[in-house]
Amino acid sequence: MSKNLTTRAEDYSKWYNELVVKADLAENSAVRGCMVIKPYGYAIWEKMQAELDRMFKETGHQNAYFPLFVPKSMFEAEEKNAEGFAKECAVVTHYRLKNDPDRPGKLMVDPNAKLEEELIVRPTSEAIIWSTYKGWVQSYRDLPLLINQWANVVRWEMRTRLFLRTAEFLWQEGHTAHATKAEAVEESEKMMNVYADFAQNFMAIPVIKGIKTETERFAGAEETYCIEALMQDGKALQAGTSHFLGQNFAKAFDVKFANAEGKQEYVWGTSWGVSTRLMGALVMTHSDDQGLVLPPSLAPIQVVIVPIYKSDEQLEAISTEVNILTAALRKMNVSVKFDNRTTQKPGFKFAEWELKGVPVRIAVGPKDLENGTFEVARRDTLTKEVVSKDGIETYISDLLEKIQKELFEKALNYRNTHITEVNSFEEFKEVIDSKGGFVSAHWDGTAATEEKIKELTKATIRCIPLDRVEEAGSCVFTGESSIGRVLFAKAY
Amino acid sequence: MSKNLTTRAEDYSKWYNELVVKADLAENSAVRGCMVIKPYGYAIWEKMQAELDRMFKETGHQNAYFPLFVPKSMFEAEEKNAEGFAKECAVVTHYRLKNDPDRPGKLMVDPNAKLEEELIVRPTSEAIIWSTYKGWVQSYRDLPLLINQWANVVRWEMRTRLFLRTAEFLWQEGHTAHATKAEAVEESEKMMNVYADFAQNFMAIPVIKGIKTETERFAGAEETYCIEALMQDGKALQAGTSHFLGQNFAKAFDVKFANAEGKQEYVWGTSWGVSTRLMGALVMTHSDDQGLVLPPSLAPIQVVIVPIYKSDEQLEAISTEVNILTAALRKMNVSVKFDNRTTQKPGFKFAEWELKGVPVRIAVGPKDLENGTFEVARRDTLTKEVVSKDGIETYISDLLEKIQKELFEKALNYRNTHITEVNSFEEFKEVIDSKGGFVSAHWDGTAATEEKIKELTKATIRCIPLDRVEEAGSCVFTGESSIGRVLFAKAY
Repeated sequence: MSKNLTTRAEDYSKWYNELVVKADLAENSAVRGCMVIKPYGYAIWEKMQAELDRMFKETGHQNAYFPLFVPKSMFEAEEKNAEGFAKECAVVTHYRLKNDPDRPGKLMVDPNAKLEEELIVRPTSEAIIWSTYKGWVQSYRDLPLLINQWANVVRWEMRTRLFLRTAEFLWQEGHTAHATKAEAVEESEKMMNVYADFAQNFMAIPVIKGIKTETERFAGAEETYCIEALMQDGKALQAGTSHFLGQNFAKAFDVKFANAEGKQEYVWGTSWGVSTRLMGALVMTHSDDQGLVLPPSLAPIQVVIVPIYKSDEQLEAISTEVNILTAALRKMNVSVKFDNRTTQKPGFKFAEWELKGVPVRIAVGPKDLENGTFEVARRDTLTKEVVSKDGIETYISDLLEKIQKELFEKALNYRNTHITEVNSFEEFKEVIDSKGGFVSAHWDGTAATEEKIKELTKATIRCIPLDRVEEAGSCVFTGESSIGRVLFAKAY
Repeated sequence: MSKNLTTRAEDYSKWYNELVVKADLAENSAVRGCMVIKPYGYAIWEKMQAELDRMFKETGHQNAYFPLFVPKSMFEAEEKNAEGFAKECAVVTHYRLKNDPDRPGKLMVDPNAKLEEELIVRPTSEAIIWSTYKGWVQSYRDLPLLINQWANVVRWEMRTRLFLRTAEFLWQEGHTAHATKAEAVEESEKMMNVYADFAQNFMAIPVIKGIKTETERFAGAEETYCIEALMQDGKALQAGTSHFLGQNFAKAFDVKFANAEGKQEYVWGTSWGVSTRLMGALVMTHSDDQGLVLPPSLAPIQVVIVPIYKSDEQLEAISTEVNILTAALRKMNVSVKFDNRTTQKPGFKFAEWELKGVPVRIAVGPKDLENGTFEVARRDTLTKEVVSKDGIETYISDLLEKIQKELFEKALNYRNTHITEVNSFEEFKEVIDSKGGFVSAHWDGTAATEEKIKELTKATIRCIPLDRVEEAGSCVFTGESSIGRVLFAKAY
C-alpha cells in the first residue's frame, strides 16, 4: 500500500487530516461538522473508555444516564453557563414531519407540531443534572453524589476538525455534589490528577497541571483545573478539565441539604470531562510521517505477524510456528494479529500496519524457520532486530513496556525543551512565532493584558501551573508587578 | 425501610412504575418523555452491554460511531423507512440562542440562525449509515461490513413509560452489508439467535423466535425476525428484532460493489437492535410484590452480607469473619457487599436489598459466630437456610447458578402454561380477556383480518414462530384456509 502522506514539515495540519482518514480513525460525515468514528478509531476510544471507567469507579464514582435534551428554561437557569454555550446550541423546535404536498414522496416539518418550549441538545449536562439532583438530595447523608455519564454532546462550532473540534463529540462528564467546599475542591483536584495519570501513564502524553485564568474558565465554574499537552507543531492542547463549581448550580437549581445540625445549606459542586478530542492529542503527540504511532496500552493490535513465503508449503510451515507464538503472546495478554492474507504482498502489509501504528511487527520467512528466529520491528523507532524464538514472548512483552515508556520520554523531552522562559515581549513574540511551545512569562493578572497579548500573538494563557514557584517579576507586556510565571501558547 | 409497593394483583401497571422508581432503576426527568437512568439501573444496563458486546465481537462485529443528526433529505431517501418514522421525529431547526430583549437574562432562539436544511435527531441510523457505507464499499473484497453502534436514539412517543417506551432511549444497532442475499439472511437469523441466547441464558427470560407479519415489520425491511417474551400480566413484549433489509437501503443510497467478475451489484443489508426496553422486560419477568428479583448474571451486587449485632465488639468479631468470606467470594468472581452501615437497622437493610433484588442475602450474628454458620436467604424464593461456614463460598457460587437456572425455569413454565391453542373466535376473545398470554390460532394471512382482530381484541400477531409445524386449518376469524398457527397477544 502506498501511503502518500503529506509530511509534517510540509503541512502539519494537512498531515493530521490525512492521517486521521487514511489510518481509518475517522472521516467527515454528510452532516456538517459531525464525524464518523470508524471501527479502528473507535477501538482505540474503547480502550480509553475502559481505562478511564476503571479509574472513575476505583475513585468511588458510578455511571448514570441523563436526557439528551434540556428545556430552554432549564438551560438558562445558570446564567453564566447559559451565556457561555448559547451561541453554539442545536435547538429542537418540532417533533414531527409530514408529507410535503409540493414534493411527492418527500417530507417537511409539520408546522402543527411545534414544541411549546424549545429543547436544547445538551452541549454539557450541568443544567439537566442539577435539576435532577434537587430531587436526590435532602440530607447530608445523601452526599456526596459521585456520578459520571458517558454521552454525546453537541456544540455548533463553525470551523470543525476531525476529533479536535466537531459539532457532535463523545465524552464523559462527571458531576458531583458535596456537603462542603473543601470536599468539592478536593474532588476537582482529584479528578484532574486522575486525568493526568491517564494521559501520562496510559496515553504516554506528558501534561502540565494547572488552573485556568478567569477568561479561559468554564462558564459557570469558580475554578477550572486543566491538563495541558504539547503537540509536535508547538501548539498546546487542553486534554482534560475539572471544574470546581462552587454553589453556582446548587443556587440556580435550588439544591439544598439539611446538615448534621438540621440547617439548610446549598450543595457544592464539581464537573469534569474528557472527550474524543483525546484521539487528536494521541495522533499529534506520537505519530510521524509514516503514519500513526500508538502507545502499546492503546493499540487495538499490539503485535502484527507477517509471513514471508513463496509457496503454500512455506506458508504452512510458517503458520505452525506463528500459531505457537500467537498462543504464547495471548497468554501474556498481548493482542496479536496474524496477517495471513493471500491477496496482499508483505510490502503492502508492512506499509499498512505502519500507517495504522501497530507498535511491533514480526516478520517470519523460511530463513527464520531454519534459524529458529523472528524479525522484530518497532514502529516508533522504525528499527529491526532478529530475535531467537526461545522466550520471544517475554522479549515482546518487555519490548511493549519499553516502547510505552520511551514514547512518553520522547514526548516529555520534546515538551521540556519547548518551555521557554522569556522576560520581554520581544522575546515572547520571537519564541511564539519561531520555536512555538509554551512560553513561561510574567503576567500582571488582568484579563485586559491577556486579551491584548492574544490579539497580538494568537497566544493565550494555557494555565497557571500548579507547581509554579513564587517569583517576583514584572509583566512581560505591561511591566506591572507579578508573583509568578504563567504558560502561554498558541492552542488547538 | 418500608417498601409500600402496590401489589401486582392490585394494579400491575402501578406496581411496575413504583418498582422502577423505588428500586432506583430510573425516574422521569423534567424533559417530556425522557428518563434518567439512575446508577443502580445503569449498572444493570452496563452488565447487559458488556455481555452483548462480547457476543457481537465474538461473531465478528466491530463497533463504530455515526452522527446523531440526519439531514432531512438523507432521512427521506428510503421512503418506507422515512414514512415509518416521520411522525415521531425530533427536528433541529436552529443552531444558536441569543439574549431575549423582552426578558433580561433570558434566552430565545436566534431567528438568524436557521439551518438551511433541518436535521432529524436519529430515530434509527440506517439512513446516515448507508450514506456512509457508499464510500466504504467498492469491491466484493470490502464486504461484509459487520458494524455495531451503541447510541441514544429519539422517537417522539406520545405516551411514554419508564424503559418500555421513552422519547429518548439507549440501544445498540447493528448494520451490516453483504455481497449476497443468502449471507444477509444468514446474518439476520444469526443475530436473532444471539439475542435469544442472551435473553434466555443471561437474563433468564424465555423467548419465542419468529418473524413479523408485514404489518408489524420494520419500516424499510423485507423481513423482521424477532424474539418475543411474556410478562407476568400475560402481555407480550418484543425483546429484540433483526431485520433483513434486502437491497432497499443499498438502492436508496446507491451502495454498489464490483463482484468477482467485475460486475456492479447492489449490496444486501441487515440491521438489528435491542434497547433499554430490556430493563423493563427484566423487571416484569422476574420481580414480585417485595420488589426486584435479579438473575445473578445481571445483579450489580450478587450477595449482600448484613451483620446482626448489639455491641461494637460483636460487630468487630463479625467483621473479621465476613472479611474472610468476602475475600473467598471475590476470588470466585462473586460480587459481594458488606452492608455495615451503622445508621440503619438489619430489618431496614433486609427490606432495602429485597427491594433491590440482590439474589442472595447472608445474615450473621453472635450465634452464628459461636456455631460457625451463616444464614443464607434467597431473594427469588424468599427462603432461608443456615449454612456451615466451611466451604460456604462454593455453596454460594453453586446457589447463584441454581437461582439463575430456576428463574429461567419458572419463567419458562409460566410462559408455556400461557400459550393457548384456540380454534374459534369466541375462544380467542375469552382467552385474551381472561387468561391472557399467547393465543395460538390459525390466520388467513391478510393484513385486513389482522387489523380487524386488533380492533376487536387489542391483540396483535406477535410473530409467526420459526418452529411452527405446518398444519392445515381455517382462520379463527374469517374461516379462510391457513397453513399454520401464529401467536397473538396483547403487547407492550
